[in-house]
Amino acid sequence: MRSAVLALLIAGLAAPALANEGKLDYDHQEKWSAALDRAQSPIDIVTASATPASGDEPQALEFRLSDDVDKVEDNGHAVQVDTHAAQAQIRGRHFSLAQFHFHAQSEHTIDGRHYPLEGHFVFKAQDGRLAVVGVMFQEGAANAAAQTIIDDLAAHAATARDIDIEALMPKKHEYYHYLGSLTTPPLTENVEWYVLAAPVTMSKDQLGAFLARYPHNNRKIQPLNGRPVIHSAG
Amino acid sequence: MRSAVLALLIAGLAAPALANEGKLDYDHQEKWSAALDRAQSPIDIVTASATPASGDEPQALEFRLSDDVDKVEDNGHAVQVDTHAAQAQIRGRHFSLAQFHFHAQSEHTIDGRHYPLEGHFVFKAQDGRLAVVGVMFQEGAANAAAQTIIDDLAAHAATARDIDIEALMPKKHEYYHYLGSLTTPPLTENVEWYVLAAPVTMSKDQLGAFLARYPHNNRKIQPLNGRPVIHSAG
Repeated sequence: MRSAVLALLIAGLAAPALANEGKLDYDHQEKWSAALDRAQSPIDIVTASATPASGDEPQALEFRLSDDVDKVEDNGHAVQVDTHAAQAQIRGRHFSLAQFHFHAQSEHTIDGRHYPLEGHFVFKAQDGRLAVVGVMFQEGAANAAAQTIIDDLAAHAATARDIDIEALMPKKHEYYHYLGSLTTPPLTENVEWYVLAAPVTMSKDQLGAFLARYPHNNRKIQPLNGRPVIHSAG
Repeated sequence: MRSAVLALLIAGLAAPALANEGKLDYDHQEKWSAALDRAQSPIDIVTASATPASGDEPQALEFRLSDDVDKVEDNGHAVQVDTHAAQAQIRGRHFSLAQFHFHAQSEHTIDGRHYPLEGHFVFKAQDGRLAVVGVMFQEGAANAAAQTIIDDLAAHAATARDIDIEALMPKKHEYYHYLGSLTTPPLTENVEWYVLAAPVTMSKDQLGAFLARYPHNNRKIQPLNGRPVIHSAG
């Protein structure tokens, strides 16, 4: 039975559908063991192995990104911007942006490659579902929105200025999607991940300002355990 | 920190968004503890506490239920029908029906009340997401589709006959939706639940035939831990 369960897990998210798990003792349910750490984030995205998104359902990420933010803060392990006014339709469903924050180096890797910084835009739906959009940052042209965050953080600004959140995302919404987890404790597994393929630039100084505060706040790559990674033009 | 995390969990699916979790030791990530057993199924559905579904996203459950099934089996802990031809659009997204099976008495309760039997229709999406539709059965008119299952199981039928799956679901798709888990090991937490409000009937003898095989294969009610329960007309 143990190896059957393991085989199931290797094959992806296990459903009782997929094998005979043998007799279950319903009179001693407290002895049932859970396997709840098989779908963790971040992962390495192997682009050649990704499955093209199915054409028979909505795939687009549509953002209505208000500039209105609540607070720029150092939360003790990352630079974070709290917000409440930004909305998204993610594959047809409605989400609100709760916050975004930054990890260095990137938590996800694309074909084994890290970027110097990754932004995580954490969206929440009415039913509690989390969808996190990952944005890779690389060195290039300066980014005015990133500069506002850096300045507000340095000034310990009590009231955040407007931030052009849209400038922190690429125009092209091509993405890699999989089911994963939060990357900090409690590592909850109920997160839809959308890692955008196109990176966004910051200047060398801007990247340096983020890294000066947190040079190493990226969780290690976690095993895929057979989960599908879906590729969509967005 | 412990009580802060607990407060988060009580407030629902926790995101780092929602509190300062304090310093994280990125050099000893193996010591991070996961809290992955806070969103389990089944639950008691308190109808008066359910949140009306938001109007700004698709809410309908649309089934295209082929009669073509692969196998009727006793999987060792439930009566199960395997299938592959039935499809659904669940709130806009495409799912395929993998199997359905039965629990006695019902696993979910509605306002504290069990039904004698609950059917679980296990749908899977391209990204591995599971959506399970729960159907309550009560004593009343006989159900021809249920009789086919009972007969095939008794005959150890090698090839399953067609089953009118639609007749095992109510015509009205009003539902209670929440995020939960499988109700048998590995108890995986990545399941969207849709418990239909309208019950379906079977005759006393038909219910008896299911209960004769498994009179007690329902998992105990699990704590809600602050998860929203959404009510929709479907």
